[in-house]
Amino acid sequence: MMIFQPPKGMRDWAPAEAAKLNWIMDTVRSSFEKYGFMPLQTPAVESFELLSAKGGLGEAVKDEIYYFKDKSDREIGLRFDLTMSLMRFVLSNQNMPRPFKRWQMGCAWRYDNPQAMRYREFIQADVDIVGAAGPMADAELLAAAVDALRALGFDDFKVRISNRKLTEAVLEKLGVPKAKMADVFRSIDKRSKISDDDMRKELKDKAIDAKIIGKIFDFIGLYGDKGVLAKLKKGYGNVAGLDELTELFAVTEQYGIGKWLALDMSLVRGLDYYTGLVYEVAIGDKKIGAGGGGRYDNLVKSLGGQATPATGISLGISRLFGIAEELGMLKDMPTAKVFVAPVNDDVRSDALKIVKQLRDQGVACETDLLNKKLGKQLEYAAALKIPYVAIVGPEELKQKSVKLRDMASGKEQILKKEKIKNAI
Amino acid sequence: MMIFQPPKGMRDWAPAEAAKLNWIMDTVRSSFEKYGFMPLQTPAVESFELLSAKGGLGEAVKDEIYYFKDKSDREIGLRFDLTMSLMRFVLSNQNMPRPFKRWQMGCAWRYDNPQAMRYREFIQADVDIVGAAGPMADAELLAAAVDALRALGFDDFKVRISNRKLTEAVLEKLGVPKAKMADVFRSIDKRSKISDDDMRKELKDKAIDAKIIGKIFDFIGLYGDKGVLAKLKKGYGNVAGLDELTELFAVTEQYGIGKWLALDMSLVRGLDYYTGLVYEVAIGDKKIGAGGGGRYDNLVKSLGGQATPATGISLGISRLFGIAEELGMLKDMPTAKVFVAPVNDDVRSDALKIVKQLRDQGVACETDLLNKKLGKQLEYAAALKIPYVAIVGPEELKQKSVKLRDMASGKEQILKKEKIKNAI
Repeated sequence: MMIFQPPKGMRDWAPAEAAKLNWIMDTVRSSFEKYGFMPLQTPAVESFELLSAKGGLGEAVKDEIYYFKDKSDREIGLRFDLTMSLMRFVLSNQNMPRPFKRWQMGCAWRYDNPQAMRYREFIQADVDIVGAAGPMADAELLAAAVDALRALGFDDFKVRISNRKLTEAVLEKLGVPKAKMADVFRSIDKRSKISDDDMRKELKDKAIDAKIIGKIFDFIGLYGDKGVLAKLKKGYGNVAGLDELTELFAVTEQYGIGKWLALDMSLVRGLDYYTGLVYEVAIGDKKIGAGGGGRYDNLVKSLGGQATPATGISLGISRLFGIAEELGMLKDMPTAKVFVAPVNDDVRSDALKIVKQLRDQGVACETDLLNKKLGKQLEYAAALKIPYVAIVGPEELKQKSVKLRDMASGKEQILKKEKIKNAI
Repeated sequence: MMIFQPPKGMRDWAPAEAAKLNWIMDTVRSSFEKYGFMPLQTPAVESFELLSAKGGLGEAVKDEIYYFKDKSDREIGLRFDLTMSLMRFVLSNQNMPRPFKRWQMGCAWRYDNPQAMRYREFIQADVDIVGAAGPMADAELLAAAVDALRALGFDDFKVRISNRKLTEAVLEKLGVPKAKMADVFRSIDKRSKISDDDMRKELKDKAIDAKIIGKIFDFIGLYGDKGVLAKLKKGYGNVAGLDELTELFAVTEQYGIGKWLALDMSLVRGLDYYTGLVYEVAIGDKKIGAGGGGRYDNLVKSLGGQATPATGISLGISRLFGIAEELGMLKDMPTAKVFVAPVNDDVRSDALKIVKQLRDQGVACETDLLNKKLGKQLEYAAALKIPYVAIVGPEELKQKSVKLRDMASGKEQILKKEKIKNAI
């Protein structure tokens, strides 16, 4: 029966998963806020006019999103990212202090073919800086993203970085005609999905000279730390965009995040609105991207606003959850820390007093609501992976004490009621 | 231009508002978790089959929700509450340990006419207990809701309580024919929206005897603390549902929440699926409800599951925000606690080191990304209501110090870099 299933490509987060998901979101948010990014919330639904605006994905987006009409025949849709909503907010709040640094976390929806870790409803966590042109803003973004990933426990990851200005200038220098630039970008963008041979064939089909194709491969093969900057200069001279990359790496060094950055000349990013620096997050050897972003200095203007530089990076929360889970990084996070178990009905109201005391102390705790026998209560606490059970019995109560059982070790100790909080 | 506006009836939460909203959601969640409720997340989109299921709102719900078809012609819609999704989850996870206590917070959507504090996209925070029949479960819900409201700073509020079993039994005793029961319930449910005269007229139009109408008004006029229980017994005898109410009040007393509960015999709640106890949250003298819920012991079964008692209460987060804002209860909550301001370009990298130190210490801080002069940096910090500015100048740096300005008082002090965290 359909009724038992979430819609195709969407998922529930059962308590054990939702607890981990919430921890991930709390952790990312806390990193973003440490960097001074301010919260913004926008509706899940946006006008199709916004979702299909030029500069964004355009009219063709209709095939990729949840598009529908409301009861007054207004064309609307579920947002496919958080950037277009930010743009709308910026356009209607043009007098906000600049730079405007905001974080936003929430669901977005795409009518993709569901695959492993690719859902039709997914959670994104974005930081963007609107109104700051220099690489200092980009460094701030990257530092916040690296901070968030490290706080989640990732260490073996790279934020891959390139600059579309530089890619274009180098390709031009290598002899790619201006008219074919967008086409060649598209082929390069497929690099992680197709083989080198297939890409070579594709470029050949686009009538790119074999010698040029060889040079393109040399260029997009450049990968590594800031040492790549010198190679670029040596190989292609002082091309457009190189200064920006150089400056960016100088600033990021002050942030101490060099270890997690990599220059990657094969990176171009699919979206047309990127104008310069682009980023993509790769965890370990995972093929699936865990985030990305870049500069989109023309988007506000193309939507009818004042010329406004902007840059952003988005972490894929659903994917980070999937990867962290796969790597066994997320431990169980039961909600209640202690289950208070009365041994019989006579001590129920005493047990409830202890429950109340613990909650007043801020300790998440659970108790029996079904008049279960002690054995069944312990089974329930074990099933919920609650780490401690405070057993409330008449003997211990006389000493104003309870028997605290550590559910992992099975060890028990008698201790005064007011000592429970510190013991767990 | 449409593009500048959120969809009709929906809203943005600008940073100053979003910060307060997040604080509200964090606070409510923390109360719910203290009571051992476990998190659950479900998709925003659900099948129309679920949304329109009998026992829920039925087929007629189509007019009240965002209903549409996906590209494969599947009938889907945006969820109008969190309860039906919980039901789906329970139906597909029937072996979970019982009781299943879950909290969920998230948006829901209804195609209502937008009014003050009534949005088409709104945020709800729900706690539900599935698989526990007795009033102990209801007391646990009410205690969690009261805890959340008090943690938000509300004190002048009541959770109004009634029992549909009792209402039905009393009305029957007063002479309301079984066949007209649902109709009379519907009239009583309008009580806060229409005048007593209009209600009297409506009941008369429904062919209820004038003498009975008088008695109905006597009954629904009963309001107050547990003293009402005695009046009910005296007036109507030991009617169905009175025991439950009595037991509920006895348990809630152990929770110490009596002050915030009120018996209100005019309360019936609109939804048909409620089977017994019902609740509604009223803040001060606000007409607009801030939450509500009740027992729905037949819903799981009516959807095809095993007979499973269930009870829930939902807080209207968007409304609580509106009410708290109206009452001036929410203070500014700037993200960054301190803005680090270099007095000139020579000390920028020193300033960045201080920024990094503070962030490593967990202090949310901001700095200049636009090479602004000091005066402009101070203006920016003031506009963002950041409470402190750490001014980094060459003289102070020699002493490994900064000048810390309290932006509210204008007071400045020179202090060592490592002392900043404790000073703010």
